[in-house]
Order: sequence, then C-alpha cells, then structure tokens
Amino acid sequence: MTLGVGVIGVGMIGQDHIRRLTHVLSGARVAAVTDVDLDRARTVADDLPRAALHASGQDLIADPDVDAVVVTSWGPTHEEYVLACIEAGKQVFCEKPLATTEEACARIVDAEVAAGRRMVMVGFMRRYDEQYRAMKQVVTSGEIGLPLLMHAAHRNPSVPSHYTSDMIINDSTVHDIDVARWMFDDEIAAITVLKPRVSSKAAAGFNDPLLVLLEMAGGVVVDVEAMVNAGFGYDIRGEVVCEDGTVELSESAGALVKTAGRVSGPVPAHWRERFVRAFDTEFQAWIDAVTAGGTTGPSAWDGYAATVGCETGLAALHSGGRVPVVLRQRPDLYKEPAP
Amino acid sequence: MTLGVGVIGVGMIGQDHIRRLTHVLSGARVAAVTDVDLDRARTVADDLPRAALHASGQDLIADPDVDAVVVTSWGPTHEEYVLACIEAGKQVFCEKPLATTEEACARIVDAEVAAGRRMVMVGFMRRYDEQYRAMKQVVTSGEIGLPLLMHAAHRNPSVPSHYTSDMIINDSTVHDIDVARWMFDDEIAAITVLKPRVSSKAAAGFNDPLLVLLEMAGGVVVDVEAMVNAGFGYDIRGEVVCEDGTVELSESAGALVKTAGRVSGPVPAHWRERFVRAFDTEFQAWIDAVTAGGTTGPSAWDGYAATVGCETGLAALHSGGRVPVVLRQRPDLYKEPAP
Amino acid sequence: MTLGVGVIGVGMIGQDHIRRLTHVLSGARVAAVTDVDLDRARTVADDLPRAALHASGQDLIADPDVDAVVVTSWGPTHEEYVLACIEAGKQVFCEKPLATTEEACARIVDAEVAAGRRMVMVGFMRRYDEQYRAMKQVVTSGEIGLPLLMHAAHRNPSVPSHYTSDMIINDSTVHDIDVARWMFDDEIAAITVLKPRVSSKAAAGFNDPLLVLLEMAGGVVVDVEAMVNAGFGYDIRGEVVCEDGTVELSESAGALVKTAGRVSGPVPAHWRERFVRAFDTEFQAWIDAVTAGGTTGPSAWDGYAATVGCETGLAALHSGGRVPVVLRQRPDLYKEPAP
Amino acid sequence: MTLGVGVIGVGMIGQDHIRRLTHVLSGARVAAVTDVDLDRARTVADDLPRAALHASGQDLIADPDVDAVVVTSWGPTHEEYVLACIEAGKQVFCEKPLATTEEACARIVDAEVAAGRRMVMVGFMRRYDEQYRAMKQVVTSGEIGLPLLMHAAHRNPSVPSHYTSDMIINDSTVHDIDVARWMFDDEIAAITVLKPRVSSKAAAGFNDPLLVLLEMAGGVVVDVEAMVNAGFGYDIRGEVVCEDGTVELSESAGALVKTAGRVSGPVPAHWRERFVRAFDTEFQAWIDAVTAGGTTGPSAWDGYAATVGCETGLAALHSGGRVPVVLRQRPDLYKEPAP
Repeated sequence: MTLGVGVIGVGMIGQDHIRRLTHVLSGARVAAVTDVDLDRARTVADDLPRAALHASGQDLIADPDVDAVVVTSWGPTHEEYVLACIEAGKQVFCEKPLATTEEACARIVDAEVAAGRRMVMVGFMRRYDEQYRAMKQVVTSGEIGLPLLMHAAHRNPSVPSHYTSDMIINDSTVHDIDVARWMFDDEIAAITVLKPRVSSKAAAGFNDPLLVLLEMAGGVVVDVEAMVNAGFGYDIRGEVVCEDGTVELSESAGALVKTAGRVSGPVPAHWRERFVRAFDTEFQAWIDAVTAGGTTGPSAWDGYAATVGCETGLAALHSGGRVPVVLRQRPDLYKEPAP
Repeated sequence: MTLGVGVIGVGMIGQDHIRRLTHVLSGARVAAVTDVDLDRARTVADDLPRAALHASGQDLIADPDVDAVVVTSWGPTHEEYVLACIEAGKQVFCEKPLATTEEACARIVDAEVAAGRRMVMVGFMRRYDEQYRAMKQVVTSGEIGLPLLMHAAHRNPSVPSHYTSDMIINDSTVHDIDVARWMFDDEIAAITVLKPRVSSKAAAGFNDPLLVLLEMAGGVVVDVEAMVNAGFGYDIRGEVVCEDGTVELSESAGALVKTAGRVSGPVPAHWRERFVRAFDTEFQAWIDAVTAGGTTGPSAWDGYAATVGCETGLAALHSGGRVPVVLRQRPDLYKEPAP
Repeated sequence: MTLGVGVIGVGMIGQDHIRRLTHVLSGARVAAVTDVDLDRARTVADDLPRAALHASGQDLIADPDVDAVVVTSWGPTHEEYVLACIEAGKQVFCEKPLATTEEACARIVDAEVAAGRRMVMVGFMRRYDEQYRAMKQVVTSGEIGLPLLMHAAHRNPSVPSHYTSDMIINDSTVHDIDVARWMFDDEIAAITVLKPRVSSKAAAGFNDPLLVLLEMAGGVVVDVEAMVNAGFGYDIRGEVVCEDGTVELSESAGALVKTAGRVSGPVPAHWRERFVRAFDTEFQAWIDAVTAGGTTGPSAWDGYAATVGCETGLAALHSGGRVPVVLRQRPDLYKEPAP
Repeated sequence: MTLGVGVIGVGMIGQDHIRRLTHVLSGARVAAVTDVDLDRARTVADDLPRAALHASGQDLIADPDVDAVVVTSWGPTHEEYVLACIEAGKQVFCEKPLATTEEACARIVDAEVAAGRRMVMVGFMRRYDEQYRAMKQVVTSGEIGLPLLMHAAHRNPSVPSHYTSDMIINDSTVHDIDVARWMFDDEIAAITVLKPRVSSKAAAGFNDPLLVLLEMAGGVVVDVEAMVNAGFGYDIRGEVVCEDGTVELSESAGALVKTAGRVSGPVPAHWRERFVRAFDTEFQAWIDAVTAGGTTGPSAWDGYAATVGCETGLAALHSGGRVPVVLRQRPDLYKEPAP
C-alpha cells in the first residue's frame, strides 16, 4: 500500500522532498537514498526509519524495495538516472531540468516512446499552484475570450555569487517557459531577450534584469521580467490578457497591518514559502498516480521543450536578436496530457 | 454672476474655505470677512482682492455685497449667525455643529420653518465623498437587498491636549451619526456606548477608543469604533451589510510600493487629505445651488438631529446604558431632501 | 510508527477527517470506525484498508489497535466518549463542542485533572489558519501596541431549514468565542447580543443576523457580526485594533478577473474551502503531538470555556441584556498552553 | 484678475475644457471661441456669458480680450495656431499632439526659441494624475534605488470604426511615450513593436493589441501593452521596477461589493472618468502659471519628442524591427523643466 520511494541526490531540494514524503504527505515512504556525497546520504538515511543507503543511483534503482524514484541530483546527472528508471520500468519524478541539453532530453523521450508508456514526471511545480490553476481555469473556460498576451515577472531576492546571466534563463525563466506552454497548450515559436539597465546589485559582468519575450505558435506574446537580485522578496507576477478581460495572480495573501502611515502585507521571502503548497500538491499527485499504476503532470516532452526553450533563450540573450524555437516532431505518446 | 460670499470666522477651517472659494472653485468670490479676532480677519482680508472687513458677523450679514454667508466661527456662536442669516433672507453654509444644543438647533429649525423656505446647509462633507456616495448608491439601488448592519471606524491620528472623551462624540462621531441617518434615510432610535481598554496614548481620564452602537428606527444596527489617538494615520472605514451582500469603502488608493519584504500603500495622514475632494464638491454644490436661488445638502433638520444624536451619545457614554433618541416632529419643510 | 486512529462518528465531518488521515496527512491510519448508524460505519470501513468495525464507541476505545481517538459523533454524545478515552488513557481529538453543557465540560476537565495529564484536544481549527496565526503573531509581538478592540464577521451563505437563532451562537459564534480567548490569552467577562433588522432570507421566527459583543476580562471589546443567511459566500472577517495600528485578515486570495466593468476575486463558497488547510494543519499537529506522546492545541479548558461562553451568549440573546460570564477556577493543568 | 481664455476648436474635448473653465476651476473665463464649424461655435458661445465668437483662429488670437489660448482643434491645424500664439506673444495650451509631423513640431520649437521664452504647454494630462505623480515621487526619491524597467498597459474599451493600428500609436501610446520620458527624465533611444494574436473584436486589417517596447537612453526598458478593443473598461496600468523594489499604480478605488460569490470593485468605463481630476489639476496649473506670467508642464520640446516617438513607433510597427529614435539637439530653453 505504501509506496517505497528512492531518492537520488539529498541536497537541499532532495531533503525537502524527503521531509515531504516522510512528514507531510500520505501514501509514501522513503525506502532508499543515495548521493554523490555518500556521507551526506548516510546522515540523511540515519534519520529515516528503514531507508536503505546505496552507493550509486543505479544500485538504488535496482533495489526491489524501491517502487519509484525521485531524481534530485545535480542537473547533468539527470539523464543517466532517468534513462535507468525507464530501463528498469520504474516511475520517476525528476526535478527540472529533465536534462541539461536538447540531445539528452531527446534520448529520454526516445527511450520512453520505445518503452511505450509514460514513466517520467518533471518537477514544474507552478502547474500545481492554486493561483496559476485558477488563472488557467479562467483562460481555458473561454469566459473572457481568447488569450492575446501574458505579462509575467519572476523576481528572486538574491542569488549565490556563482550565479550567471545564463542561469537567469536556465534556472528562473525555465519556469515561465513551462508556464507559457502549459497556460496556452501551445509551443513557443521564437524568443527575444532585452537587456535593461543592469542593477547595481548584480555581480560584475552580469545582466540582471532581463526582459524575455516569448512568441507562442498561436500568436500569444508573453513578456517575462526576470530579475534575480530583486532584494525585497520573492515575487511572482502573472497576468493573461484576453479579448474580453484579463486574469491575474493576486498578491499573496497575509495579514494586513496598518501602522506608521502605511497599510501593508507581506511579500514572500523565498520560493519555498511562495510555492510550499504547490510542491505538496505536486508530490501528492505523483504519489497517487504512481500508486494507481501510472504517472501525471509535466511529461518528458515538457521537459524536452523546456530545455530547448532555455537553449533558444540563451542564443537570444547572446545574439541580441530574435531566435526561432525548433522542436522535433511531438510523438503520439505525448499527444494527450497525462491524466 | 459671481457669488459674493461673506465668511464669519477665519480660523483654520475658515481659511481653508476661503482658499477653496478663491483658488479652487468656480463662480464665487470672498466679498467680506470677519472674526472674533479682528487682527486675524484683517490679515486674511489683506490677502484677498476686494474683500471687506467687518467688525461683527451682523455687519457682515447686512453688507449688500454679501450674497451668501459661510459660518466657520466657534460652535457656540453658530446659532446667532445662522438665525441672523435667516432673518436677512440670505443663504448660509454652517460648518458642523449647526448649534451646540438641541434647543438652539430647534430655534433655527423654527425660524427656517417660519421663513417658509430652506436657507441653511450644514457642512457634513462625507455626503460628498465619492466612496460614500458609491456606497449609498449600492445600498439604495437594492441590488444587494435591504441593509441590516453597518460597521464603521473613525480613527484620528492624534488630538490636541484639550480634547476630551465628550469631544470624541461631538467632534468625531457626529460625522458617523450623520452618515448613518443619510445612508439609511432613517433616524436613530437609541444609542449605547461601550468603553474598551483605554489606549496608553490617551491623556489621563480619557476614554479612547469608544465603541458606539446606533440602533436605527428601521432596525439597522451601526457599530462605530471611534478612536482619536490612533497614531498611524487618519483612517475612515465603513461597510454596510445587506441581505445579499456587503458594500464597503475601499482603502484609499495610492501608489503601491514593494520593498523590504512588504507591499504597502499610504494611509492618509489627516482628514484634510482624506476628504479634500469631498470639501471641494460640497462647496461647489452649495455655490451652484445658491447661484440658482436655493440650497442643497444637509439641512437644518439634519443639523438638529445630529446634535440630538450627540447629546444622546453623551448620555449613553456617561450612563453606560442604552439611551433612546427623542426627536421633535419633523416639519414638512424637511420632508423632502434638498435637491 | 504509524498512529492507529479510531473514529467515532462517520458523518460528513467524520468522513472528511478519515479522508484527511488516509489520503492527505502523514503518520496516521484509520484503525477502527464506529457510528450510531452501523450500516454507514460498515460502508466507510469497507473502503478502508485494515479498519476494524466496532459496534460502539466504548468497544472502539478498548481496541488495542486504536492508539488514539477522534470523536466526530453527535454533540450530546461527546462527553461519554471523551471521558472513556481519558479513562482508557488514550489521546482524543474531539470536534467542537467538547460537550453541550457547562456541567458535562466540567466533568471532562475534572477527569483530566484527576488523570494528571492532558489527553484532550478540541477542534477549533481557526487557531491553525495561516491568516489568524499571522494576525495573532502581530498582536502578541507588541509591534503595534496593546490590543483594544476586535471587529469580526462570521457569514455563512445559508443554513439548513432546522437551524435556529440559538444555533447561530452554538455553531457559528462558538468559533469567534474561541478566537477571542486565544487571540488575547484572556477570558470573556460579559456578553451582550443585539438583534438588527432580520434578513428576509431568514426563516420565520429566526433572528439573523446578530451582533454579539464580547467584553474580555482585560478590557478588549470584540464585536462579532454573526449572519447565517448571507447568501453570497462564506466570509470570515477579523481586525484587531491596537494602540499603534491595526491588523486584519486579508481577503482570501484568488485569481483576479477584470471583465465587464469590474475587477473581482472569488469569495469562498463554503467553510470547507475557506479552512481546508487549517483542518489539515490542525490534524497533522495532533498526529505529531500524539506520536510524540502528548497533545497540543485547544484544551479541555478551552472547550469548557467555549461552552460557558455559548451558554452566556444564549442568555444574553434571550434576555436582551448584558450577561457576565462566570467560569470556575482554572486548574493548574491548564495554566500553560499545550506545547 | 480673471484670465480671458480663447478656445479654438469646440468639439468634445474643447467643450469639456470650456465646462472646466466655466464651472469647475478658479481664475479663468472663456472670452472667445471659434471652430471650423461656425454653427457649432455659435451654439457654444450662446451658452456662455460674454464670450465673443470669431470666424477664425487668427481673429481669436488677435482679440485683445483673449489673454491666453486653448487649442483643441483638429491635430493638423495645431501648428498654425500655436505658431500664431507665439507670434502674438500669447500663452497657449495645446492638446496633444503639439503637431502631427516632426517638422511641424520643430518649427514650433524654433519659433519659441526665437521668441526667447516658453509660451507653449502640451496637454499630457497623466503628469497631473495623483497616482502617476506618487509613482514618480517614489522613483525620483531614490528610496527604492535606480529604475530598471517599467511595465505599462493602456486599454481602451473600444474605438470608433475609423480607428487604425497607426492610431494606437498616435492616439493611445503617445501618452505612454510621454510618461516614459517624464518618469525617467530621459529620452527614448529605440522602439520595437510586437504584434500579438489579433483580437477578434478588432476591425479587419487592424493589429490590436500591440506590445510596444521603449528603450530609454539611460537603459530603462518600458514595455507597453496597447489595446483599444479591451471591452471591459478603460484600464491604465503602470509599474516601475527599481533596484530595491517596485512601485505601481493601484487599481482605481471605488466601493467594494461582495455578492454572488465575488468581491469586486469598478473599472473606469472611459478615459474621462479615469483622468477627470488630472485634467482639472492640469488646467488649473496652467491658469495659475499663465496668471503669474509664465507657463508650466509639458513643453513644446516634450510635444516634439512625443511626435518623433510616434513616428518612430509607426516605423517600428510597419518594419517589424527595432528603430532608433533620432532627435535634434535640445535647445537650452528646454534644459530646465517648466516650474
């Protein structure tokens, strides 16, 4: 009854998912862990009841107690583990990115197509956020007409010193790329990146913020402000403009305080605070789907398209021009969204 | 064409109305001024083109250049000047209170009834505030059913050291008393005053805040939080609860700022800031009505009922119990609201 | 490791808690069920893996597989089951009311005191709502001074035909009574109930809405609008007025839509929608505390005080006057809040 | 004392300004009117006290009773009248556009420079809107750091059947062009226009909405959604993103209504409703400045730069590419903003 989950990679996000599986959600338990840093993996395993420690991801995937796998290791290792899960016939939840290159993602798509069934879910948690879901519900209901434009902002309070402009695309805008594809059930046709005045809070040689323009195949234009040294908080904004009206994410609710001449509410301090419930909902949906014998949510194709989008975004950032997005043909396996 | 206005009393509010008549509004000019402090009146007159200086209110009212009169002198003197205006057949705008006792107000009502036409407007400016008007429009439209309850708050940032608990009723709650009567086209039937914990910011012996309960004749109950040492700003709140929904004043608009973990907007600092446009609209309405040969807005009856309401409120404050409001019969002259 | 929970009473709320224990939360499973309607209990048990069916609450409490008990049966039966749990030394989560009379609550308090340890948690879920918690955090931080007043509104869209004015107190206002006690760490000293104009949507002979005034021992005054035929939605409002500012619940967030001349957001349709996360948080807190060997949250004393508050509120409703709240002495066991 | 104003062009906007001068504002009167449709001018004059009727703009400008001139005629005629005012040494308020071509605007600038003093104010009323002013105050205060980006939306509910895509730039976006220049005290360096999916509400061959990108010389990037068939209302949005936070226009305030499952406020129906006070403030500022012997507000240079911006925007719209904005040298006369 209880799903035995193996976790590959027990860094910050891996440990957060372990906490979720162990203390928050229903129907799963952590059956095994591994990490490139085995000492870290051991420490984590010691805190868990009945969790095996494995020396490698491959060993973990082969463990018969592991019914399904969570991949939260370093991005460049994702391909290897996801392919191994498909090979082993085990459902896998892979944090974004699915893989770090278009080719690697394509290999995963090919393997899944060859296997003939969907076994991969990619961790684009915004699709499980209540506000985004409410927004999509309004857009797809047609009650305010066809969508024409979307305005988005993705503001991180700060980033580690090793962060680069490329990471604004790969680590931040990737979420907006996925949201745009999901919101409009459409692919991105072309990307342009503008470089506004650089914030004095950005490290040297670093273009922050960026204004990323996504042109959807169906004509919707999405402008994304991506800013990773926003300082004041973690602020995610979105508004879809349709023919008869608009729908937008509301400001995050919180107790309102009036004092000293201002009425104010909180801005989330961190993405974990902003999306904590989306992560819970996403993970519970995966557990439930896997327990029922399948998968759900963002597919390997979504992971592939997001990585191609990021690569195109980087080309646009570096060239200063408008760069078309070129995708391979979408396999039939991905014609329908996962249930 | 241009209405010649005489101003009796050129303190803070009088000077504000003179500024309004001279620099903001259309169709009027200050023709004469007077004040109990003649030096102050002279200083004000010297700044005005063609404004006569009079030694007394009576002289000013008699001045043939004075077409209409604004009374902004000390409250206890209002009765005398308003009666003199009625006697002289000149329209008069009297700042609240119409007069400081029920008897004085009744004498004004009697004089106006004897004169057979309306010549008095009392300065309850909230009736001219866009938000209150929008709220009343919703209530009277019936679109959300009959009104059942009203919640109100009246928060002043601070008061002068001579302020007393009685003044919370007479100077602050008087506006809420008028709003309740106007909002529901109804008289107040009884008043109760509760004394919550006293703010440490209130002077010794001073009950601040108060919770004032107004029971309207038709059954609507209004609770008014009256607080005059609120510190953080001038904050006026109101919500009417009807059978099918509620309508409330929105927070005052202003640019929203996100910084340092908060999203915030301004709270007005002063009643002048909050109601500046209501004062302009109120005064322009009076100028236009007087120019057209009549008057408008809150009548002498409204001034009478507000003063009785305050006296009843004080009795309730002092007794701790529920005190009925006893009004004389409403004369026919006041059966219809002013146009 | 997994807590075996027995559920007494599998009506709407009981089934909702079973769903929560089974599909949402971590660390517990339903070990046994019973209900006055045994067929209903059997149907529920059949849908659960490994849940025993018991013919009575007493049998269920005695079941060695039942580590802890949830009481969601009809109110008048609560006392019996809670006392049996205390007797059996098993932790119990009892939906409000703890018991339906002051005397019954007092017997539970006495039993728990005699047992020498806390074994009862009462289901006042608002204490686990994020907004209420944020509000209490601001109040207790002292950052805006001491609390003076609280304004509250409790609006249900509609009620079943058997609902009565008394139930407005017992079933709706009971939550506001608990919130007031919790928010200010204080007892209620007196209650007054005003009866505004009756909504035409209320059944005959039914006073809806009510305005309930709670005077806290420390001087804070709380006004509660209680309205159970509000029609438009489930709307819970709260604002605490302190010496240097106010703090209020924000409107529930949701996607904002602009269309047809209005900008609008949703109002929750039902208490389940409004408080779904509070119920989850509350229950997970109980599971975690019981697993750790204790309990948490609202205590038997809180249940006792709420029932006394309701009885006083009813007396105030029926008498039209101000009725003091008389509590017995608070036992040492309840001097400290549960951890 | 009272400024005699001559009005050239008494169509909708001209009549609105006449109403303003006659019934709303202080210190001015309409001394003369004219219009290409003399019958219309006569009808308007007949409703005004002491207003001369002139057969041509030149006659009106020459009238010694006309102290200052308002030009609200058809755009292509603006140049002629503004030049005549400068020639006559009379202050002129010219509705936007200052003139319809770069060359015409340049001739006005040259004439004013030759005259050696500022005599032209252009009607960009947003600079007088309270919200925009509050936003600019925050930006220029530096309290949230240097500006990096601005997001704007300009949504008209509908447009007449003769409207074209070019008019979205010339009649709508022109305001955003002026706002960007004013907000950042900077010129626009380049413009790009994207064409999202066309609304089905737009007439055939009409690109609506547009996404207009303004790159300021100092690096700030402004994205402007321009949509003239928005249907739901007149909706103006703006947010400036700075290094330490953002500042945005709040939604227009209005009474909030909760009913039928929604909490909602009004969206303005028309630009007149949204900016009525900005027009009043703008015009009073002009009257006061002219009475004091000078002028104020947006200058001929601002009018010139706006027209160049529109011409560049049209080139960008038609070419699909990024088009630099080329301005002549700014004369010393315009180095300082008007007082």
